[in-house]
Amino acid sequence: MQAPRRRLSVADRREQLLGVCLGLIGTQPWDVVSMTDVAVAAGVSKPLLYHYFSTKSDLYRATVRWAADELRDATRLDPTLPIGRRLLEALRAHLDWIDDNALAYRAILQGGISSDRDVQDIVEQSRAEVVRRLAQAFGLVDLEPAQRVVLRGWVGFLEGACLEWLNSREITKAHLARLLAASITPGALRAAATHRPED
Amino acid sequence: MQAPRRRLSVADRREQLLGVCLGLIGTQPWDVVSMTDVAVAAGVSKPLLYHYFSTKSDLYRATVRWAADELRDATRLDPTLPIGRRLLEALRAHLDWIDDNALAYRAILQGGISSDRDVQDIVEQSRAEVVRRLAQAFGLVDLEPAQRVVLRGWVGFLEGACLEWLNSREITKAHLARLLAASITPGALRAAATHRPED
Repeated sequence: MQAPRRRLSVADRREQLLGVCLGLIGTQPWDVVSMTDVAVAAGVSKPLLYHYFSTKSDLYRATVRWAADELRDATRLDPTLPIGRRLLEALRAHLDWIDDNALAYRAILQGGISSDRDVQDIVEQSRAEVVRRLAQAFGLVDLEPAQRVVLRGWVGFLEGACLEWLNSREITKAHLARLLAASITPGALRAAATHRPED
Repeated sequence: MQAPRRRLSVADRREQLLGVCLGLIGTQPWDVVSMTDVAVAAGVSKPLLYHYFSTKSDLYRATVRWAADELRDATRLDPTLPIGRRLLEALRAHLDWIDDNALAYRAILQGGISSDRDVQDIVEQSRAEVVRRLAQAFGLVDLEPAQRVVLRGWVGFLEGACLEWLNSREITKAHLARLLAASITPGALRAAATHRPED
């Protein structure tokens, strides 16, 4: 049975459609999902869906971009908190978000439907934003190359740890947040910068 | 001009074709590469190529599997070395390998052609093998869930740092190897295991 149609503003309707699409990503291979499936799940007509997104690729890209924006907004670092707490709070928000959107998070990061160049770009932009925020939080104005490598490495750590956790969920979210916070330290970043290679 | 054909054993010919294919991955979108391109690059006839790999997907999967095996063999941990040195030597070999196969490494890890479920499985198996080796190197027989999360996180760190390095190559390989070795410590793993969550 379709959900009853509601009259929404253009912006609200678009957001509703993106949310419904995000909920479908990862539930089955994206190739198998049709625009009809999305329209049915959203309780709208297919023409209405096509009015907002002219192709299935458009819808997918817009959804990944919207999800990236949502995650970014949810994990803003609060500059009024001390650095350790600031990081921990953002990590908790990050984990809440991926917990709520686990299937889509895995599907988007683990490929399957990420062969789209635009989707890869959105994911890379999100990673770069995390690097930028962390650099700012640690007071690093000009990031040295080695520091950039370490921060980008840590974004990989975050993703790898989160994917592993989503597979098993054998530790609590709070525990995972603390492990993640402990894995990145200003000390390591300073060491990366001051470490002078011998060769 | 085609390279002159040589008479190779079946195993050697197969390996040659895999090597040629690996060299082509990432040079252009995989959709654009044809079996003819691979045959020409390998200096063999198309029927010969098809004799070894019945489809382009077969060839791609076999190449990714072969590359994963090559990388695994190149980075075996030498048990006669002390742990720090053991890790550093393996990391150096890892960096030499990805340096030699940079385009393919990026293409395979960053999607584009990894939407194939089999390819994803090969990549995941490689990650699991790194986790297994590190656990063994650190003498962790029964990996606790938190330790598994940390080790899988570190595989993500390795990938993220390597991808960032391949983008810019602003630090030396030796420097990168030391940064990577410093980013994983037995201490952190012990802390992960003994850390008892408060909630």
